[in-house]
Formats: sequence, C-alpha cells, structure tokens
Amino acid sequence: MALRAGEHSQEAANGLKERVLTLDSMNPCVRRVEYAVRGPIVQRALELEQELRQGVKKPFTEVIRANIGDAQAMGQIPITFPRQVLALCVHPDLLNSPDFPEDAKRKAERILQACGGHSLGAYSISAGVQMIREDVARYIERRDGGIPADPNNIFLSTGASDAIVTVLKLLVTGEGRTRTGVLIPIPQYPLYSAALAEFNAVQARDHCRPRALCVINPGNPTGQVQTRECIEDVIRFAFEERLFLLADEVYQDNVYAEGSQFHSFKKVLTEMGPPYAARQELASFHSISKGYMGECGFRGGYVEVVNMDAAVKQQMQKLRSVRLCPPTPGQVLLDVAVSPPAPSDPSFAQFQAERRAVLAELAAKAKLTEKVFNEAPGIRCNPVQGAMYSFPRVQLPPRAVQRAQELGLAPDMFFCLRLLEETGICVVPGSGFGQREGTYHFRMTILPPMEKLRPLLEKLSQFHAKFTCEYS
Amino acid sequence: MALRAGEHSQEAANGLKERVLTLDSMNPCVRRVEYAVRGPIVQRALELEQELRQGVKKPFTEVIRANIGDAQAMGQIPITFPRQVLALCVHPDLLNSPDFPEDAKRKAERILQACGGHSLGAYSISAGVQMIREDVARYIERRDGGIPADPNNIFLSTGASDAIVTVLKLLVTGEGRTRTGVLIPIPQYPLYSAALAEFNAVQARDHCRPRALCVINPGNPTGQVQTRECIEDVIRFAFEERLFLLADEVYQDNVYAEGSQFHSFKKVLTEMGPPYAARQELASFHSISKGYMGECGFRGGYVEVVNMDAAVKQQMQKLRSVRLCPPTPGQVLLDVAVSPPAPSDPSFAQFQAERRAVLAELAAKAKLTEKVFNEAPGIRCNPVQGAMYSFPRVQLPPRAVQRAQELGLAPDMFFCLRLLEETGICVVPGSGFGQREGTYHFRMTILPPMEKLRPLLEKLSQFHAKFTCEYS
Repeated sequence: MALRAGEHSQEAANGLKERVLTLDSMNPCVRRVEYAVRGPIVQRALELEQELRQGVKKPFTEVIRANIGDAQAMGQIPITFPRQVLALCVHPDLLNSPDFPEDAKRKAERILQACGGHSLGAYSISAGVQMIREDVARYIERRDGGIPADPNNIFLSTGASDAIVTVLKLLVTGEGRTRTGVLIPIPQYPLYSAALAEFNAVQARDHCRPRALCVINPGNPTGQVQTRECIEDVIRFAFEERLFLLADEVYQDNVYAEGSQFHSFKKVLTEMGPPYAARQELASFHSISKGYMGECGFRGGYVEVVNMDAAVKQQMQKLRSVRLCPPTPGQVLLDVAVSPPAPSDPSFAQFQAERRAVLAELAAKAKLTEKVFNEAPGIRCNPVQGAMYSFPRVQLPPRAVQRAQELGLAPDMFFCLRLLEETGICVVPGSGFGQREGTYHFRMTILPPMEKLRPLLEKLSQFHAKFTCEYS
Repeated sequence: MALRAGEHSQEAANGLKERVLTLDSMNPCVRRVEYAVRGPIVQRALELEQELRQGVKKPFTEVIRANIGDAQAMGQIPITFPRQVLALCVHPDLLNSPDFPEDAKRKAERILQACGGHSLGAYSISAGVQMIREDVARYIERRDGGIPADPNNIFLSTGASDAIVTVLKLLVTGEGRTRTGVLIPIPQYPLYSAALAEFNAVQARDHCRPRALCVINPGNPTGQVQTRECIEDVIRFAFEERLFLLADEVYQDNVYAEGSQFHSFKKVLTEMGPPYAARQELASFHSISKGYMGECGFRGGYVEVVNMDAAVKQQMQKLRSVRLCPPTPGQVLLDVAVSPPAPSDPSFAQFQAERRAVLAELAAKAKLTEKVFNEAPGIRCNPVQGAMYSFPRVQLPPRAVQRAQELGLAPDMFFCLRLLEETGICVVPGSGFGQREGTYHFRMTILPPMEKLRPLLEKLSQFHAKFTCEYS
C-alpha cells in the first residue's frame, strides 16, 4: 500500500492520481439508496425556482412543491402555544414578560427544571428528558383508553425517521443469502427502502430471511386508514411468521374520513390478549412533523417499544447514546403535543381553535382532492381517509410509455417531469414508492392552501388531458 | 420459515417462544459498539443521583459530572445574543417587542426570509438553509485568511457527530479481510471507534485496507493543540498513504495555552500548494456544542469537504436527504456563531464581553487543572493547551491492578468507579479512549464552575493518595 512519496507526486503531477473516495470505491450500499421524495424531480424544481428568480420566462410564475409533507412550507401557520413555550425555554428572560400566558410560563419552567443546568443548551440523556418521556407515556395511556405505557420504553428521537432507522439497524444482520429481509408495504414511504439499502438488507422477497414487518397507518402515500380488523390480521400474521412489527403511526392525528378511526397497534395488540399481547414485539413511531403542528424543521419524535427483550433495549440505549441526544427544542414541542393545555388553562380555547382549524382545513382539502381528480377522465383517486397525501392512478397512453422508455425514464417519472416543466407543479412519481407493474401513480400532498389547491388540481387534470392527447 | 400458527401458539403457551430480536439474533455490529463517555460509569452516576434524591446517605452531597463536555449542564450561562435571535425566530410576534435589540431582530428576519414558509417549522434543504451555508463559507474564509470556501461544499448537520458518521459511512466498504480500516488517534474520542464498530469497519492495524485518517485538533481527550509543522506532517503522510483525511476541529475556538494557535487543516493544506492542495481529500467538522457557546442540546454543526469527488458529493447529498434536514434551531445558532455581531452593531459589546468571559474562565480552569494535578504524587498531567479536558496519567499500585482484574474490570475503570462511589466525582477511565498498554489515565472536563473546580481537583488528588495507600 505504501508507495513512496515520489511515485505519488509523479502521478499527481501527471494528473493521474485517483481520489481515495470515488463512485467506484465508495460504500456500495449508499450508492444503492434511493429517496424519491427528494430525488431528481425535486432537484429540477429547485433549478426552476432559481431560473424564475433570474427572470427566465416560464409557462408558470411559481413552483408548487406538492412533493413533501411540509405543512408550514405551504403556508400553514404554526400553532401559537407550543411556539410560546419554546420561546420561553430558549430565552428564559421572557418568563418576566407580561406578553406570555401563565400556562405557557408554567410549562416552560417545568421543562427547564428537568433539563441539565436548567437549560436547553445542555445535552439531555440519550433517550430524552425523563419528564418528557413520562408525559409521552401518559399521552399514550389516554390515547389507548388506559392501557399502561412505561416511560422507560419510550425513546425520544430526531424526528420519527431517526427512530425508525435505529430499530431497523438493530434488526439487520447477515450477508449474502442470509441477508435480513424486512417486509414493507407497496406502495411505501421510501425512507424504508432507503434505510434497508443503506444497511445492505433487502425488501423481503425470496432470497432472504424476513424478520420484520413495517406498516404505515394512516398510510403514506395512499392516505388509507386501517380498520381494526385489518390491524388484527396484520398482528396475527406477524406473530405466526415471527416478524418484529414496526408501526409508523406519525399520522395518527390526521384522520378525516367519516367512519375512519385511528387504532394504535399497541392498543389492538393488547386487547387481543394471549398469546399475542405479551409476546408480539412492536415498535410504534410518532412525530411532531405531521398532525396539526407540522413542526418538521424541529425534528422531534419518539418510539415506544413493546415486548422488546430487555438486553436488546439496553443495546438500543447504548447505540443511541453515541449520537448524544435528540435536539432539545424538538423535545419541548413534543412535550406540548402530548400534554396540551387543559380546559382550565388560559390558553385552552385558542389552542383548541387553532388545532381544529388546521385539521378541518386538511379534511376539506382531502375531500376536494378526491373529488376533482375523480372528475378527470383517466385519473382515479381513492378517498384520502387520512395522512397528507393523495396517490391517484393515472392512465398513460402507450406512446407516452414508449417515449419514456426511449428516454430511459419510468413512464410516471416522464409524466411528472413534463408536468413540472409545463405547470410548475412538483409531485413524486409512483415508481418512487412502488406500485403494481403496468400501473402509474403520483403522490401529491393535500397541503397547498385552499385558494391554491383547487386551481392546482384543475391545472393538473388539464395537463393530464393534454398529455394524453399529445401521445394518442 | 412459516411454521403453522398452532405450533407457535403451543410454544407460546408453554412460554417457550423466543423473541425475534434477542442479544444473539440482533445486529452483531451494534453489539460491538462501545461509548465510554456515556458508559457504565455514567449509568452508575445516574443511580447515585437517584439515591441521593431518595435520601440515601452518601459520603458526598452531589454527583459532579465531569465526564462529558457539556458546559451548560455545569452552569455556564448561555450567550445572550444567539438566544435572542433564536427566540425571535421561534416566535416571530416578538419582532414587535421593544425588549430585543435591533441587530437581533434584523438577523432573525433575515434567517426567517431564507426558511421555507418563512418558518423554522418547515424542513430546510438537506444540506441546510442556503443562506446559512453561505455565512459558514464566509466565516471559513475569514478564519483562513481569505482562502476561498464554497457554500456548496458545506453541509450543515445534527451536531458534528452526525456529519462525522456520514463521511465515515461513505468510506466503509468490504467484508472480512477487505474490511475498511480507518486510522484513528490513540487516545481517541470514542465516537470514532463506536461508528466504526457499527459499520463493521476496523481501527486500522494489519488485517484491513486503511482508507482514512481521523485527527482531532485541538485534541479530545488530551487537550493538545497541534503545531503547524505537525499538521503538515499529517497531510504529507495522508497524501503518501492515500488516506482520506477527517479533521475534527470542533474545539477550534478553545485554545488557551500561550504560544498555541489553531491552524485549520484546510488552510495548511491549501498553503502547502501542489501536489497536496488540489488533490488531498479532506473533511473538516465544526459544532455549536463547544467553543464559547456550548449549545450542545440544540445539535448544530457542519462539515466542509475539500477536494471531494463531485459524484461522491452528490451521493452524500442523497444520503443526507433521507434524514430530511438538520434541526433548524441548531442551524440558527450556527448562523450566529459564524456571523456574530459586528463592531457597529448594538449587541457587539455585550456579545464580546460574554464571549471573552467564557473563554477566559476556561483558560483559567485549564491552568488550574494542570497545576493541582501535577502537585499530586502519582498523577501527571500534560498542559491543557485547548479543548475542554485534562487526561492525566495516574499511577495505580499493583495490588489495585490485581484486584481490578479479579473483578473483571480495567484497572482505571476500577479506580474511576471507586472514585465515583466515595466522592461523587464522575470521570471516564482512559481505557474508554485507548492508552499505551500498562498506563492508566482518566478524562476529566475542565467545565465545573471555578468555585467547585479547585476543591474537586483536590478531593480527587486526595482520593488517589488514599487509594494508593489502601492497595500498597
């Protein structure tokens, strides 16, 4: 390995010396990672925004990013109370200000008391501030009708993604034909496929040993909310097939359709009784990025583990301690999310009104999306029962499919790229999530503000008609 | 794989069914991870604190956590200006408040303008808010005497650890005898050994292919500040041996000793000219957790990559996009750290005074630590030139070593555990960082407040004398 310096310098002088780290020599698992939600189409959207700013003429005046569940980027106003509490924690001089309600001050003081040095600037313990873990446990108990939750089974995280990746990391092991398999839904949120590629595990098919099953409920990208019966079936299947269950429940507050209701996997599992309740391993994830807060940028979340082996839990704790702690501001907002103002608190009325307004508007947008898409020939959209996305199926004419293949693009990627170039609407092709062979979809968030959403949906439908015409 | 349900239920009824995820079946790489800074000794410290709260009698009244570089947990007061800016960003209603200085408001408005939806609640792009990347680039240019820095080579991160792990992840590849080796200093900060264990890479010795060299300057745990000549030697070595350089420079503002000065690897590399300047690959890391801010809990940091292959950089960007974005509050504090108030700004005087006071106190504590330890027989402490730690060498009598071995403990772990039990002082044994065979050290932060530090150092020295006596 150790060539003499002279030889290298000579090579370098000739411009021949290769870099240590190249596409060929880098970690091949990382190379295989794909993440459509921020993939090439989003890169192109950023370029188009740049061109618009530079005054380049386009057939549209703004890029609408309907590719990612980022409510505040789409204009959703932050809920007041959590931001007040966080501002007080960040700058405790404000505790003397008359402009903040008493309950926000009480909450901030209580959180600061629980922080090292009474400051958000100290590391918390790796699993998160103990008091906040306790508040999360009480939230889960209320949500699940009194089924006990143990704070020591709760680990706060840097958004839900971080916790999901941690649990997957514990599960992967083996190489070649013994590589770990993880069953994921199709279509899926591409965090799962990306993390599995990074860990050299596989989305279970034949040549592996499946150890885990991931479920997203309410569904991303489909917006489906699972019935209780469906959840029971999944739990029975996992138990029989000996699969660790990962329940991605970050949209648990985002249920809109009449007759739909969120049931947590933990509650259903517990109520199923023996042999499931005491044995089936489960990790349930939640986040402050979705729901009614939409505080994505703060990166807060948690995982609750159920029936996890005690020694494995210790290993998980150890693994998390290497990254020190989840960001404290995200922990503060999580605390407010799980213990909001009570009816007797001064901020209760405003908090409830703001929360209801956000959820009501989301429900209206879910309905509108389904309606407008289903009026368009060649587009079919399932009811958006929950979460923040529609995942409509689009008919693409054979000549468009052929043209896409000539360009080396998935047909729905070709459709979405053309859509972006001609209308400024940025959505993610279904091929980034997985879909039945020969069908084409895209994922579009329901987050654009109401006054923009209707024209947007109509513009998209019209573009589809024009595109169909062009290639027929 | 698919046993029938009945068989499983039978097993379960007999209590025989094994969990899917056990110590034996879990990811063996995770099992091999060790992280001394939050290891068993810290667990014990937490238990002791609990016992004290419950009124259990101890030979001390509080546990002093000198195990981790967590300034605010040790009572350091946050610098005012960055907290003002962050509070304004979190709760923009405060922009109308007369209690905030104009420059803090200007800065907050500028940051919010650059955020999606003008809110910290939106995701930023994965590499961080573009404007903040630009501010970081200008900071690096000032620091390095005008050597250009490209914002597109700067990736903001969730503390420096997150960025270090990302770069290491790109580098690892191969299995068995072709496993990737990474050269790390001994003693080292155990993030490096932990990350390498997690990725199934090895700390380079013989049976691997070394691809990277990690340097920590100013040093953790030793507090050493490298001379310019030393840095040049490291760069030449890396170039000749074809090693990607990782420069952990998170303590760049923490230099205390007269005659010591921080030289960035980027600056030295650039000034060395050909063949090094244009070819040697380098990643330099920085953080808001150390320096004069000590804002650990907010998890902010960045990496600048130099001479990185363009395609690899794209892969890095893609990999980071899966975790969406670094927490926005940490990005805000980083922005203040790299573009603090200018002399003409209303907050300049106070900011400078607070900053100087923190650094002057750290310098005094560095000196005091060295002095008190070197007065104690059997303890030898190098000058703490920079960073936040002393790493004194302690003589341990043979009978103590023997007793430790009987207990299955490293001798310095035995010493540190006894120290904790009898004095409440929590420090980390040298064996957690690596040390020359047959020598014993511990790492202790210089962060306890001045009025506590002197008695602490004396108590520790006295305990060492007593311990030596006991085992002689």
